[in-house]
Amino acid sequence: MQLYSFYNSSTSYRVRIALALKGLSVDYQGVNLRAGEQRQNDYRALNPAAGVPLLVDDEGNGLGQSLAIIDYLEALHPEPPLLPAEPLLRARALELANLIACDIHPVNNLRVRNYLANELSLSEDQQERWYRHWIAEGLAAAEALLVRHGFGDYCFGDAPTVADCCLVPQVANGIRMNCDLTPYSRVMAVYQHCQRQPAFQQAAPDQQPDFAS
Amino acid sequence: MQLYSFYNSSTSYRVRIALALKGLSVDYQGVNLRAGEQRQNDYRALNPAAGVPLLVDDEGNGLGQSLAIIDYLEALHPEPPLLPAEPLLRARALELANLIACDIHPVNNLRVRNYLANELSLSEDQQERWYRHWIAEGLAAAEALLVRHGFGDYCFGDAPTVADCCLVPQVANGIRMNCDLTPYSRVMAVYQHCQRQPAFQQAAPDQQPDFAS
Repeated sequence: MQLYSFYNSSTSYRVRIALALKGLSVDYQGVNLRAGEQRQNDYRALNPAAGVPLLVDDEGNGLGQSLAIIDYLEALHPEPPLLPAEPLLRARALELANLIACDIHPVNNLRVRNYLANELSLSEDQQERWYRHWIAEGLAAAEALLVRHGFGDYCFGDAPTVADCCLVPQVANGIRMNCDLTPYSRVMAVYQHCQRQPAFQQAAPDQQPDFAS
Repeated sequence: MQLYSFYNSSTSYRVRIALALKGLSVDYQGVNLRAGEQRQNDYRALNPAAGVPLLVDDEGNGLGQSLAIIDYLEALHPEPPLLPAEPLLRARALELANLIACDIHPVNNLRVRNYLANELSLSEDQQERWYRHWIAEGLAAAEALLVRHGFGDYCFGDAPTVADCCLVPQVANGIRMNCDLTPYSRVMAVYQHCQRQPAFQQAAPDQQPDFAS
């Protein structure tokens, strides 16, 4: 399989964690989002939606969207499971994963930040306040869900799920952007536990072939 | 089951379509997002993430996030399936659903538009250009995926999937906001087919008890 990824893309990072947890190796293809490589014609031929990550399976099928890719990996390589078998626990893992994937990440991603800077000419201060506002609102919601429903060392139990695959890159973004994360103690405890695991370490931005490109 | 929903929330609309397709009835509870009811303490006690939709199952478990709810409904009530059994087709349905849920909808939802208007004091014209920019970029990607992978009357075949549950509310938003949707002919053909089906009609905003509240 091939993975088209940008080292600093948190949606790519989610898929890298899932691959590492499942012990799957892929041919890594860097796509430099800052240079706009995702919008070039040769990349659009692979992914008409022009984003990363993109997984190309053994039969040459290209699939985008991190949560769709993780679900597909789960179908092809069920062990270890990243989606719990018990329906309510599975629902809790997907609830938190989607909270991050839909309510936090999209509003702060690179294309939106580019629009704020270039089309709306926001000041540096306005851009930072924008970023921190959505991190604070979103992680407060994640913390509240974890306090109510979480247990164990990971988000939901003693094994990682799709929720952890999403949580770690989102927290890493918050750290990188100097957000105050001290109010989210359960979120941070899970993050720190994950960061001690080899699969999460292996998936980190600074371990990728295109790091700092 | 109970569904906490706002008639005009497109994430609530996705779940209403899924419920109607599965022939499930729920006790409908309107939550007025424009009046901020989702942030009141009694609602936070139900959903600490303070959003809609929220499904409360027969055992009193409250679950947020539209795609997590649809996946949970699929586990509890598998027929008719909204996630195809064949892995690649399932992946295609989730890819398009997530494109809409992560790349299009969040950037244009009510809380972001409130921030643009109230915190950033954007002009009406800037707000409209923002909205149309993300609709145009996102629906162009959806169209490209459907042209490449779609078939049949719905997004992926002759039966509705989670992709159709997401597509219809997103197109409805574009129509409501007077976006030019003529470039997305495959998207619009699917939308028009869905709009002729009773389940989709029943789930529409103007059929809800809190319509125009």
